[in-house]
Amino acid sequence: MIKVCFLLLTCASLTATAQKQDYPIQPVAFTKVKLADRFWTSRIETNRTVTIPASFERCKATGRVKNFEMAAARSGKFCTTYPFDDTDIYKTIEGASYSLAVHPDKKLECYLDSLITIVGKAQEPDGYLYTARTIDPLHAGPWIGKERWEKEQENSHELYNAGHMYEGAAAHFMATGKRNFLNIALRNADLLVQTFGPGKRHVAPGHEIVEMGLVRLYRITGKKEYLELAKFFIDERGKKEYNKKSKNVWENGTYYQDDKPVILQDEAEGHAVRAMYLYSGMADVAALTGDKQYLAAIDKIWDNMVGKKMYVQGSIGAVGDGERFGGNYELPNSTAYNETCAAIGSVFWNQRMFLLHGDSKYIDVMEKTLYNGLVSGVGLDGKSFFYTNAMQIQDNFTHTDIERERSGWFVCSCCPTNVARLIPSVPGYIYAQNGKDVYVNLFISGTGNMLVNNKALSITQQNNYPWNGGLNFIINPASATDMNLKLRIPGWAQNQAIPSDLYSYQQPSNQKVEIRVNGTLVNYSTEHGYAVLSRKWKKGDKVEMTLPMNVQRVVASEKLPDDAGKIALQRGPLMYCAEWKDNGGKAANIIIPKTTDFEPTYQPELLNGLTVLKGEVKAVNIDADGQNVSTETKTMAAIPYYAWANRGKGEMMVWFPQQVKYVDLGAAVLVEPVKK
Amino acid sequence: MIKVCFLLLTCASLTATAQKQDYPIQPVAFTKVKLADRFWTSRIETNRTVTIPASFERCKATGRVKNFEMAAARSGKFCTTYPFDDTDIYKTIEGASYSLAVHPDKKLECYLDSLITIVGKAQEPDGYLYTARTIDPLHAGPWIGKERWEKEQENSHELYNAGHMYEGAAAHFMATGKRNFLNIALRNADLLVQTFGPGKRHVAPGHEIVEMGLVRLYRITGKKEYLELAKFFIDERGKKEYNKKSKNVWENGTYYQDDKPVILQDEAEGHAVRAMYLYSGMADVAALTGDKQYLAAIDKIWDNMVGKKMYVQGSIGAVGDGERFGGNYELPNSTAYNETCAAIGSVFWNQRMFLLHGDSKYIDVMEKTLYNGLVSGVGLDGKSFFYTNAMQIQDNFTHTDIERERSGWFVCSCCPTNVARLIPSVPGYIYAQNGKDVYVNLFISGTGNMLVNNKALSITQQNNYPWNGGLNFIINPASATDMNLKLRIPGWAQNQAIPSDLYSYQQPSNQKVEIRVNGTLVNYSTEHGYAVLSRKWKKGDKVEMTLPMNVQRVVASEKLPDDAGKIALQRGPLMYCAEWKDNGGKAANIIIPKTTDFEPTYQPELLNGLTVLKGEVKAVNIDADGQNVSTETKTMAAIPYYAWANRGKGEMMVWFPQQVKYVDLGAAVLVEPVKK
Repeated sequence: MIKVCFLLLTCASLTATAQKQDYPIQPVAFTKVKLADRFWTSRIETNRTVTIPASFERCKATGRVKNFEMAAARSGKFCTTYPFDDTDIYKTIEGASYSLAVHPDKKLECYLDSLITIVGKAQEPDGYLYTARTIDPLHAGPWIGKERWEKEQENSHELYNAGHMYEGAAAHFMATGKRNFLNIALRNADLLVQTFGPGKRHVAPGHEIVEMGLVRLYRITGKKEYLELAKFFIDERGKKEYNKKSKNVWENGTYYQDDKPVILQDEAEGHAVRAMYLYSGMADVAALTGDKQYLAAIDKIWDNMVGKKMYVQGSIGAVGDGERFGGNYELPNSTAYNETCAAIGSVFWNQRMFLLHGDSKYIDVMEKTLYNGLVSGVGLDGKSFFYTNAMQIQDNFTHTDIERERSGWFVCSCCPTNVARLIPSVPGYIYAQNGKDVYVNLFISGTGNMLVNNKALSITQQNNYPWNGGLNFIINPASATDMNLKLRIPGWAQNQAIPSDLYSYQQPSNQKVEIRVNGTLVNYSTEHGYAVLSRKWKKGDKVEMTLPMNVQRVVASEKLPDDAGKIALQRGPLMYCAEWKDNGGKAANIIIPKTTDFEPTYQPELLNGLTVLKGEVKAVNIDADGQNVSTETKTMAAIPYYAWANRGKGEMMVWFPQQVKYVDLGAAVLVEPVKK
Repeated sequence: MIKVCFLLLTCASLTATAQKQDYPIQPVAFTKVKLADRFWTSRIETNRTVTIPASFERCKATGRVKNFEMAAARSGKFCTTYPFDDTDIYKTIEGASYSLAVHPDKKLECYLDSLITIVGKAQEPDGYLYTARTIDPLHAGPWIGKERWEKEQENSHELYNAGHMYEGAAAHFMATGKRNFLNIALRNADLLVQTFGPGKRHVAPGHEIVEMGLVRLYRITGKKEYLELAKFFIDERGKKEYNKKSKNVWENGTYYQDDKPVILQDEAEGHAVRAMYLYSGMADVAALTGDKQYLAAIDKIWDNMVGKKMYVQGSIGAVGDGERFGGNYELPNSTAYNETCAAIGSVFWNQRMFLLHGDSKYIDVMEKTLYNGLVSGVGLDGKSFFYTNAMQIQDNFTHTDIERERSGWFVCSCCPTNVARLIPSVPGYIYAQNGKDVYVNLFISGTGNMLVNNKALSITQQNNYPWNGGLNFIINPASATDMNLKLRIPGWAQNQAIPSDLYSYQQPSNQKVEIRVNGTLVNYSTEHGYAVLSRKWKKGDKVEMTLPMNVQRVVASEKLPDDAGKIALQRGPLMYCAEWKDNGGKAANIIIPKTTDFEPTYQPELLNGLTVLKGEVKAVNIDADGQNVSTETKTMAAIPYYAWANRGKGEMMVWFPQQVKYVDLGAAVLVEPVKK
């Protein structure tokens, strides 16, 4: 039963209510992919055994569960901070459902059912579900408003709660085949359909996600009203009047992606998580309706974001005040915000862009995000999280937005629960298919199963990625079959730094990536960044691809004043950083001369095993009495960015000067105003 | 005629319509004081010969005069940027009037009359005077509103224009005895009296100054409605509803000093110039009405400002965004705003606080401001101005608010015209009197004339202040007379750094300031910071006071993260800075060891003559290829802060590390977001 469900729901063309139009490319569902990957398997297992239980525990300890219980009883006083705290439960159920799908666990399934029962009791008879109001509608706080939806465009997040509920309910249904959570979601979605739409109530959702959620429910039920309502919500944006001249992003509407209709938007703007969810929702609706205007808009927005507003480790949302995108090229190191949720949203969106266009550039961004600025959001222990992901930590610099160590939970704890649902879904990002075209997007060991020409076919990867560039793929069709195997050749393997407008490699190579089939070097054509291997594949066919794993010195464009003249280190998909722990207690004193060569060494005992880069650099030191500053030559060690802050607090740098142009003795430049 | 006027108007108790209640201490008017001071006379002369003509010229060239001409013709299109551009003309007339009073100039007087004629023609029949509306009332811009005063609380500045008009008109009347400008002002003030008040229109003026201006007119006319209206406007504050929880100073009302009634305000807050004008107005009204609640409020606000929100060179208004006070201890160096107008306002307010309380601590602040953070606002050429006054300039750091060189004019040119009116009034801040108590507040050479026991008495100072601490005062009563001569002993001469909560002297001395009368050392009591010399004074009595002029190392409190552990250099009332020009092209690379002694040397040829401080320090340098950083011992030269940026652009530092705790190689920390 469960297995049938997966099949039904993950490949839209096979569902009971098949849509005529959809993403031309369909992902191979995470449930069809079994991982055996040194890098990811341990993370998924830690997510299952540590992150999800800890998340449920915290939902209980902090009163999030109690809110539902009080709403069920229609009495009490909302006992957490934000009305959207409900979503942490929905998101953890979602993560737990993904986990259940590949790792059955009766106890967990039972716990989910007990939670869902409480959630169901908290739902009002007409389907409304929002504990902050239902507990005591007469005393709902000022954020929430006296009437339902009254403050939706500002801060109530009623539709945000709904969107996460739908995502969680859809995942739970897919994983377990049970309809208990799904029915709650559908009752709520039906209320939305009754309430909002042309001739009914109008609103541009304050924090997007209900659009994606409605599409999920549409895919399950085929009920076109859900899809129509998703489109309606998207089209509601840009109708409110703002002060266009104001530079204040709340006043001019850009914070909300509401300054103009979405089809006129051409820049990644405003709250970064909301933006990612909006653009993902637009991609979904565009795929399902063929809306060309949406497509044109998100194409432009993507070019803007990836060209001008993304950090070198894939993070987005540079500005803390508003958790938002800054202007073009506004990528400060010292105050980088980089919310973990925004990185997760970027993965959602980039996958959808790939499914629309079949271009590897989207996967390049997705891979960069996954291996760097996203996975940095969770500690190796699985129970500590970054809300923001710093680009540098200096002993002399503090700022509200800069986190020096991960926390177990936050007052606004969106990121930990978003991590809990993202990590177990990673297997779903590896393979994709469009008929006979099979895409291998990520180089994660394990086996993916799919149907090609209506025959079962599996692809098994046996790699040691991202540490090793020698990749092996074994193709196993049930019987010999035609297939266009599309192996992604990462941009980084072909001198394409991302974003190419901002970064480049100091010593580009012109080496072509070599591919062997059954031991024989083959000529291959490339298409949209993929090596295309078209042939009749037989059981046991072996493909080898070798990616160059030399250490790249990434040079920043002069457009980035914070980085100009500096380099960052990259090897494979990984961005590196220097952490105090490996460099004599400091990291911000390092100069990497132009001549420094770095030697990669895999260290299995370090931080769950990783490749360290070592090279001879200069370091600037201060003598004991602070009267003299001098320079020494020493060996620097860099670790992958994702692994920082797992050994205590201290300095961390991603960008390094190659030569020093200016020395600042003033030290404490506190951007943050001193609080009274 | 003119001389009678001065007497009438500068000593309120002597005016035709004598008030019963007023400041207990009255200043000796600037017109009664003839300067012969190396430091100030040249500045006042430059102001007369350069600043005022240049200011009038710019008022003409930029269209400010044309606005009045168009308003007179009731046609055209307002041709400058801000509706308050009118005030630049009022303020320059005010400065020119002060100048005329001590330096008759028929041509200038005539020019003023011609301007005043245009101003008069721009006035509407009922007294309304505001060119931005009168030119074309139907097309007044959004800042101005369709109806008179409609946007006063926001941005129209109609009452701000009125206030500056009254100040200018009062000065012109005092200086020339002519009523042409005064009558314009009175017609306008009468319109305000008809329009605003209990049972009439209510408004809290957007940018305060009308309150001070109305008091000026009250002093001239004795018309109590002007005083009542001033009080009414002050009491209107704090009545609008704001979002008290917001941290946004516009939303919570603190930007406007409007978050609560003034008598409940206890912190220097919001736009710094507006704040100074409000508190000055409150002092005026408190003096004239005996309002104890106003007094209690401004006393608390003063303690807050001087204790927690003032820079070491007397500047205020640390935050550029809103030109405003930051939180307590929010005194960043790299982004210090420090509007010149705010320093001028602080002089206004501190003099009033002194006149109320007779305490030298107010003059300490006033002197610090005058000799440092205010006079830095105008270049030695008299025609270049700082709008903001930086605390440090580093080659690697830029920020919108930081000016590296002075400009001749600004789009919002309030500061140059405020300087033009402040400089010629400096003689009025030297002496003050309360019956037989005669206060000597500033040590500026020249002669002050007053009546003591109804007898003429002059005090002549022959000093070389601020370069030399040996001060000479010759007392010349018409005939021997009792007088309590109150010589201010500056706080800095007694180890009282200002603000004492933030700064202290590293090597306090316990030397008592010595005073000699006719060559004989005298014992003196001190009262509120003044040495009190009570005796029957005879013609030619000579008083000598010797202030210690050792170089002080000012140490910052740990409460100031930007300054902690650093020192600033002070000698006498002057704060010093290191400028690139005297230090091998750099200033931010200097470490001043704890052991460094500084040698003061007067250099008559340098920057109009000043005392330079030289000492042996460490400097951190970078080698040519940027690969090595090292430290050298060298001689540093510091110049008075007021004199910086008169020799081109380059680094400037006020605070120096005594030892380096942290070296920042990252260099470019751009606080300013990069613009698209």
